[in-house]
Formats: sequence, structure tokens, C-alpha cells
Amino acid sequence: MRAVDVIMAKRDGRSLSRDEIQYFVSGVTDGTLPDYQASALLMAILLRGMTAEETAWLTDAMVHSGERVDLSGIPGVKVDKHSTGGVGDKTSLILAPLAAACGVPVPMMSGRGLGHTGGTLDKLEAIPGFRVNLSLAEMKSALARTGCAMIGQTAQIAPADKKLYALRDVTGTVESIPLISASIMSKKIAEGIDALVLDVKTGRGAFMKTEADSRRLAESLVSIGKASGVRTEAIITAMDSPLGMAVGNALEVVECLDVLKGGGPADLIDISVELAARMLVLGGVAADRADAERRIRHAIASGAGLQRFRQIVETQGGDPRIVDDYARLPHVNDRHVVNATQSGFVTAMDAEKIGRASVTLGAGRDRVEDPVDFAVGIVLRAKPGDEVRQGDALLELHYRDPRRRDAALSLLGSAITIGRERPAAPRLIVGEVR
Amino acid sequence: MRAVDVIMAKRDGRSLSRDEIQYFVSGVTDGTLPDYQASALLMAILLRGMTAEETAWLTDAMVHSGERVDLSGIPGVKVDKHSTGGVGDKTSLILAPLAAACGVPVPMMSGRGLGHTGGTLDKLEAIPGFRVNLSLAEMKSALARTGCAMIGQTAQIAPADKKLYALRDVTGTVESIPLISASIMSKKIAEGIDALVLDVKTGRGAFMKTEADSRRLAESLVSIGKASGVRTEAIITAMDSPLGMAVGNALEVVECLDVLKGGGPADLIDISVELAARMLVLGGVAADRADAERRIRHAIASGAGLQRFRQIVETQGGDPRIVDDYARLPHVNDRHVVNATQSGFVTAMDAEKIGRASVTLGAGRDRVEDPVDFAVGIVLRAKPGDEVRQGDALLELHYRDPRRRDAALSLLGSAITIGRERPAAPRLIVGEVR
Repeated sequence: MRAVDVIMAKRDGRSLSRDEIQYFVSGVTDGTLPDYQASALLMAILLRGMTAEETAWLTDAMVHSGERVDLSGIPGVKVDKHSTGGVGDKTSLILAPLAAACGVPVPMMSGRGLGHTGGTLDKLEAIPGFRVNLSLAEMKSALARTGCAMIGQTAQIAPADKKLYALRDVTGTVESIPLISASIMSKKIAEGIDALVLDVKTGRGAFMKTEADSRRLAESLVSIGKASGVRTEAIITAMDSPLGMAVGNALEVVECLDVLKGGGPADLIDISVELAARMLVLGGVAADRADAERRIRHAIASGAGLQRFRQIVETQGGDPRIVDDYARLPHVNDRHVVNATQSGFVTAMDAEKIGRASVTLGAGRDRVEDPVDFAVGIVLRAKPGDEVRQGDALLELHYRDPRRRDAALSLLGSAITIGRERPAAPRLIVGEVR
Repeated sequence: MRAVDVIMAKRDGRSLSRDEIQYFVSGVTDGTLPDYQASALLMAILLRGMTAEETAWLTDAMVHSGERVDLSGIPGVKVDKHSTGGVGDKTSLILAPLAAACGVPVPMMSGRGLGHTGGTLDKLEAIPGFRVNLSLAEMKSALARTGCAMIGQTAQIAPADKKLYALRDVTGTVESIPLISASIMSKKIAEGIDALVLDVKTGRGAFMKTEADSRRLAESLVSIGKASGVRTEAIITAMDSPLGMAVGNALEVVECLDVLKGGGPADLIDISVELAARMLVLGGVAADRADAERRIRHAIASGAGLQRFRQIVETQGGDPRIVDDYARLPHVNDRHVVNATQSGFVTAMDAEKIGRASVTLGAGRDRVEDPVDFAVGIVLRAKPGDEVRQGDALLELHYRDPRRRDAALSLLGSAITIGRERPAAPRLIVGEVR
């Protein structure tokens, strides 16, 4: 087989064979396929597309570029959740302990924030001492002990994805539904799960801006899961404004603890419960959707979820006292409040702009190697639909560096829109694919 | 400027700015742009296209990646000819001495054969002693002395093209009209010419299989020439069957000498005279097309063209005695004749298959590094339109190695079609762009 023939086939819009896809992925993994041929093929895939069958083969080849973790020694149906990423999207820290407390083992492998969206690993590392870089043996041990392990991607898991992603990032070939799908699903399948719930974000602050694109991505992801024997379903949720009120790592940990204590904002509770309930049904510990939701809400009310969170933190080396004493989390003392310049109804809070402003404060990274300041971030003091009077607080910036504050404020200039008419209730869960 | 932004712009179908194109070409030339980014951009260009303006900027940036030869010290309008390549396409060896004999300085920079098509440099090197690797100083001196210099591409000429072509060859990005146009024209413009006649081939044995694609390429080439101040015109000529009767390096030299001596096959004479006459008009040494053709035919009849050929060979170190003694050219003694298996009219002689068979005999190369056997090749004993009887000779293979002969014969199995009806006269010059 010649690489140039495979490239030309895709360039001319033909479907690749399973062997051709295997040849490509093996060559990327072992370095025998030069980067310049891989990137030409990636661009051809982005512009010409891939069938569902090709995408499933690509995913399978990427899974087999490394190790598929064997979790058969741990009883129960192992279920994970994955979100395509958003601003203030912190549901993992809520639903993982809740699902575990309800008897579903949750082996969760997450990523870091990049660009305007946050990442679960950064939020967990805001907890002093919390270790996300567990070995596979430590992961299994944590999973056996607390019913949950929350870790980063290890070198054994889908190494082809790591190499391909690095290449896609610098060659303008990120925005391809088949490539995104194979990247997400190869890591999830390789981590040894039996079932998966996906939260595909849609809107201004999401990677996919339109509902149609989000649905295409959800369908692609679910189709791959099914092809590889992982029971997979997806919900499509709005990411027009930030989820919840907190954006920034330690600030988001606090908000998650509030939800686990029975408080917290309604949108965050609703999506967390929706995702966790689906995990319970797939995990076989609830009879149906209604039973599952009842169990999840009981795990909140009883404090079982909060207790499980404490155990997870302790098992992974973190300081469990943060659960009761938020002052033990990284924090800054400087605040800057953005006020409403007119009275009316909040009609939009642009998630992408608020996400970018938070990154500018130091809460995220533009480049993989950038350091993250766990303490800084933005707290929403109003949500779309709220009525506000001129001078009311809209946002509160938690900042360390005044220059970064000023840069963030300039990004926030047009982030919030206030209108005279009460807007329709903001959309939240806009669809599902199963 | 970030390479990934330039790639994404083209990926999304936007036109690149002159600065973006300059950034790309400079980066390729000095090695600061990684190959994997260059190849992703090349694939995006192939699939998204380029405007005439972008293509002209690309060409200009490639010209300025190296030296633009200054031929102002040589009097007269310097005119070159370029063909997009075919089988048996040997017109350069005929028209260059004819145009020079008529007073047009011809600085000709040519290429080698690759794939099923031949190359002028290989044909010239079939002449014992002939040197094509002249320095620019030697080239100017030869041009001053004989009115003609026939050389290969030097390192100073459009180095970006050399790097880009090597990358395109292995990344499935050869077949792009903007990239092909910029590659051809950057070298021609850099060699310091004032005017250019193009022979764009079309048909089975050509790079462009359809007349529409050939016309698009011709228009692109002419448009670039005009944008850069080189008076450029193109003819589109058929490459369905080989041009002339000889395919193979020394065999083609003999056929060119036959034409310069007043003989030779009609199709080869017609295209050579057409191209040479256009060179004379562009070169300002003929009043009009009719005057130009009269001068060219006179240069054949008077022997002035043949005499000029002899001088060119001698000036570039070759043995001029080959002009009168073909036995001094490389040759083999083994022949294999392919006969007609039925009576009728020759309706097609597939140029690509005959070209590939000639390469198989050793006359060409599949890879740049393959050696070439100047002696071997194929002589046509009939042409499309000819009436033949069963058993008549159709082709004569000049071979060295019986295994190569057998491999060539298996390629030739379906190369020639014989029908019952007399076919329409084969097309030859099918269009022009100026």
C-alpha cells in the first residue's frame, strides 16, 4: 500500500477501506507515515468527509493503537460521561459522585481546558493535593474503593489520538465531525467502559455553533459507540450562556459542592440530574428514567453524593476538608463588579466571550503549555431572563492582576445584552440521540 | 501571521492575500514552515482552488524565491516554448534550432521524463557528450554564440518550486491547475524570457485528459504570463496517440533530424512549425503568422535549421557527427514487431499505454532516481486512420532485455484498436488561448 494512493482516494471523494484506515493509523502511531502525508490526508478527510463505517473503522484502529483497559475485574456496568466542552460546564464533579453513590462504577478519563472552554482535570487540580495522573493500577484500585476514578489520559490509551490531535491542532484540521468523533470515542472505548452518556453542547459558547451540526456530531458519536459494543446515548444541551453561575476552577468546585449539598443554580442541577439519571439506567441500577431521577435526587438530599465526593478526593490524595471549608481552596481577595448600564431583561450572556475573559484572568490556557491560576474567574450575578435595574451587579470578576482584569473587561464589553422585553425562557436540553 | 490561520482560510474557501501567499512560499523556501503545514495547505488549495489573482501572486513569490536570470545583455526578444508533456513529444529539438536560425534567441530550460511522458533533457543526453547542466554563465555564452541554449533547471531558479513539487508528489497534491500553473510559469519567468509559447496537451496520453481541463490550464498559464510581463500564448494539441512515429530518446533524436532534413511525419512537422512560427511572431522577426511559417519552412528547406542544430550540439559538448551518422547514437539491435491481428482501420493508438511500454523497455523512469536507457523505445509502423491488413506491422519494439520486452508487450495488448469503418481524421491542434 502507498500512502499517496490512500491520500488521493480520499482527495477524490472515495471511501477508504478498513485496511487503508488501519495503514494510516498504524503509520501515525509508529512514526512510519511522515507527518506531511498524515496532514494532507487529514485535510482531505476534513473537506471530503467520512462515512459512518469509515469513522467506526478509524475509531477502532485508534483504540487498538494502544491498550484497551480491562475493567472486568470490577463488578457492575461501568459508565462514563463525556461533554464536548463549554463554559462553566462542571457537571462531571457532580454526577460522578452521585452515580457512584447510587451503585454505578464511574471510570472517568477527562481532559484539560483549552481555548475558552474549561476542563475537568483543571477543576479537580484546584483541590489541594488532588492527583489526576493515576496509573492504570491506581485507577482500578480507586474505582474498586470509591466506585469512581477521575483521571487524565494515560500514554497507553489511544496513543494515535495524541499524535493525530497534535497534528490537527497545527494544520487547521480540528473541525471535522468524523475526526472529532473518532478522537473522543477512541479514548472512551479504550478506557474499558460498558456504557457512555454524552453531553453534546450547542450554541455560541460551544464548539458546534448550530443545532444541526451538534446533532450530526451526536449521531456520529452514538453510531461509533454502538459499532464498538459500548451502549451510548447523547443529549444535546444549550451552551449559549455559561452553565451555572461560576466560571473558573476553584469557583466551580464550590458551586459543585453547593449542588451536592442541595443548593446551586437550577440549570446546573437539571443537566447534572439528567445526565446522572441516564447513567443509572444504562448502568442497570434503576428500573427506568423516573426511578433513576428519584435515586439521584435522594443521593443529593441524603448527603450520600457529598460523602462520596469526600471519599474520591481523599482516595486521590486531595484535601477533603475543602468540602466544608471553601477557604482551603485557592482564592483571591480582589473583586470587580460589572453593573447593568440600563434597566430591562438580560437577553444574552455570551458564553464564549465570558469564557475568553476568564482565560484572560488566568483561569484557562490558550496554549497547552500555559499555566493555570485556579483561584481566578467570573461569577455571574444574573442569568438570561432575569430582570435587572440599572446599577445591578451582572458579573463579578475574581482577579489577581489588574492588567489582566482590564483586558478581561474589554472582552466583556459586549458580552451581555439587556432588552426591554422579557425574553423566552432560555433553552437547556434541546434534543437527544440514542 | 500564523500558518494555521492561512491554512484555515483556504480550507474554508477564502482567497488568500498576497502577504499570506508570500509567507507560505518564503516558509517553504527557507524551511521555517514545517512540511506538515505546507502539505495541509496544498491539499486545501487543491480542493478549494485559487483565483487567477492568487495564482499570479503564488507564481511571483515562487519566482522571487530564487534568481530571475538577466538576459538583457543578449539582443533580441528571448522566446521559449513549453509543453505540458506527452508521448513522442519531441518538438523542442526541432523548433529551437529553427527559431534560432530565424533570429529568435531561445533560452530553453527543460525537464526530464517522468511516468509515461518523455523529457527534453533525456533526449538531448542521448547525444554522446551533450551537457545539459550548464551554469548560468555558460548558458548565456551558448545563447550568445548559437542563439539557443538547452539546459536543465538550476538550483538558483525558483527553489520554492523544487521543494513544493517534491512535497506535492508524495501528498497527492499534483493535480491542481493553480499549483501546476505556478510551477510551470515560475520557472519560465525566472529564466529571463520575454515571451513564451505553450503547448498544452489534451487527451489519453496527456496530464489533462479533457479539452475543458486543458483549456482551463492554458488560460491559467497565459493569465500568469501576462500578469508578470511575459507575452504568452498557448495552443492546445491532441495527445491521444504518440506524436510522430518514434518513442524513446535516441529514436526521437533521429526523427527530429529527419524533420530538420525535410522529411519526418506530418503531425510532428505541423505542430513544430505551428509552435516555431508563433515564436517568430512573438520574437518580432516575422511580420505575421504567414510570414513566420514561410521563414520556418525555408529554414528547413535551406538546411539552416539542421546546421543550427549541429552548432548547438557542438557548443554544448555533444558529438555533431550524429547528425549525419545515426549509428553514433545509442542503439540496440534487437527488434520485436507487433502485427495487426485483423484487417481494418487503425482507430486508436493509446499514447499512455505506448508511453508506459516504452518506460518498461527502459526508455523512461517511474522514479526520479531511475536510470534511463537511451537506445530502447518503440517505433510506430502505422498511425490512427491508416488502413492495415492482418499481419501488417503496427509497432516495432527496440529492446535490450527480453524480460522487459515481454512486460512491455503485455502493456501493449490493448493499446491499438482496429475497426471496420474508416475513422474521422485525428484531431491535432484543437484550440488556442492568447
